Amino acid sequence: MEIDVLSHLIAEKAKLIARVRRIRGQVEAIERALDNEAACGDVLQLVAAVRGAIGGLSHELIEHHIQAHVLDPDHAQAPERRRAAEDLMGVLRTYLK
Amino acid sequence: MEIDVLSHLIAEKAKLIARVRRIRGQVEAIERALDNEAACGDVLQLVAAVRGAIGGLSHELIEHHIQAHVLDPDHAQAPERRRAAEDLMGVLRTYLK
Amino acid sequence: MEIDVLSHLIAEKAKLIARVRRIRGQVEAIERALDNEAACGDVLQLVAAVRGAIGGLSHELIEHHIQAHVLDPDHAQAPERRRAAEDLMGVLRTYLK
Amino acid sequence: MEIDVLSHLIAEKAKLIARVRRIRGQVEAIERALDNEAACGDVLQLVAAVRGAIGGLSHELIEHHIQAHVLDPDHAQAPERRRAAEDLMGVLRTYLK
Repeated sequence: MEIDVLSHLIAEKAKLIARVRRIRGQVEAIERALDNEAACGDVLQLVAAVRGAIGGLSHELIEHHIQAHVLDPDHAQAPERRRAAEDLMGVLRTYLK
Repeated sequence: MEIDVLSHLIAEKAKLIARVRRIRGQVEAIERALDNEAACGDVLQLVAAVRGAIGGLSHELIEHHIQAHVLDPDHAQAPERRRAAEDLMGVLRTYLK
Repeated sequence: MEIDVLSHLIAEKAKLIARVRRIRGQVEAIERALDNEAACGDVLQLVAAVRGAIGGLSHELIEHHIQAHVLDPDHAQAPERRRAAEDLMGVLRTYLK
Repeated sequence: MEIDVLSHLIAEKAKLIARVRRIRGQVEAIERALDNEAACGDVLQLVAAVRGAIGGLSHELIEHHIQAHVLDPDHAQAPERRRAAEDLMGVLRTYLK
């Protein structure tokens, strides 16, 4: 079972890094678009897409942070605190999307 | 000492309600501005100010929620979890301002 | 035809005012929720809903502002400028939603 | 004088590209931080900084878009429309910062 937890964490990390790499690719596309003097409206859309992607990444990392570090992952939480954390994550979803 | 805690909570609540009332006043000012056909640029600024005020209120309520409900107010927290909650609140400040 | 334009503007104004009044109702609901000591998670959701409604109102007013005041409503615009304004509004939609 | 306009545009473009490259560097720093298993709170701050930088870039590009494409750069604008564009940019500054 410990091996399962570890392989889960490794898979999580790989997924997050892949996600950040896609964002890097999107930023490079902005650079190329400016270099090629793409239409201004197209550049604006590329930038808006990066902003959305960064918001999604933030939200995922914040959820992880709450579950792994603010709540106590090694102990069962009092159900009210777990519920309060879920309320918080639900609200943050609307702010960060 | 229990009385101190209670009077603290009552003061907090009164302050929050006063803050929401100010926001209501700002919303009423938008209503009047539209009714009086104020300049469009002025209405836009009133709306932007309400958005800022709502963001500030959100941030305060979310900080309170984390401290009072997600963390366990009745027990000393492990210092790492308190630190993690502070990191979270610091980051949320930049998102909600 | 001038009467048509006028009645259109009056209908627009009435719709906007009704929208602001609904937002005021939502702010009053936050006030009541705090007063009645509603669950913190519920208050957070009410505040997030107001923020969304304010964002939607901003977006509508900004679109109107661009079309009625930044573009020249009395003259046919050069098609590139009309197109540029549409690109702008499309991008702002993603930022203000 | 045409050469001055051109060299101005080239300088603008170079500055924008340098800015996007700095953002790319910030995204790469997130990638490295995840790879090195940096503290979660530190990663959250890096992500928040990228979001701020993207917001600033958006705002600059949107201002440029309004001035160069929505307004008519080749003709003097009616002063009311120039004023309306300034009102718009002022409000967008508060939304995109």
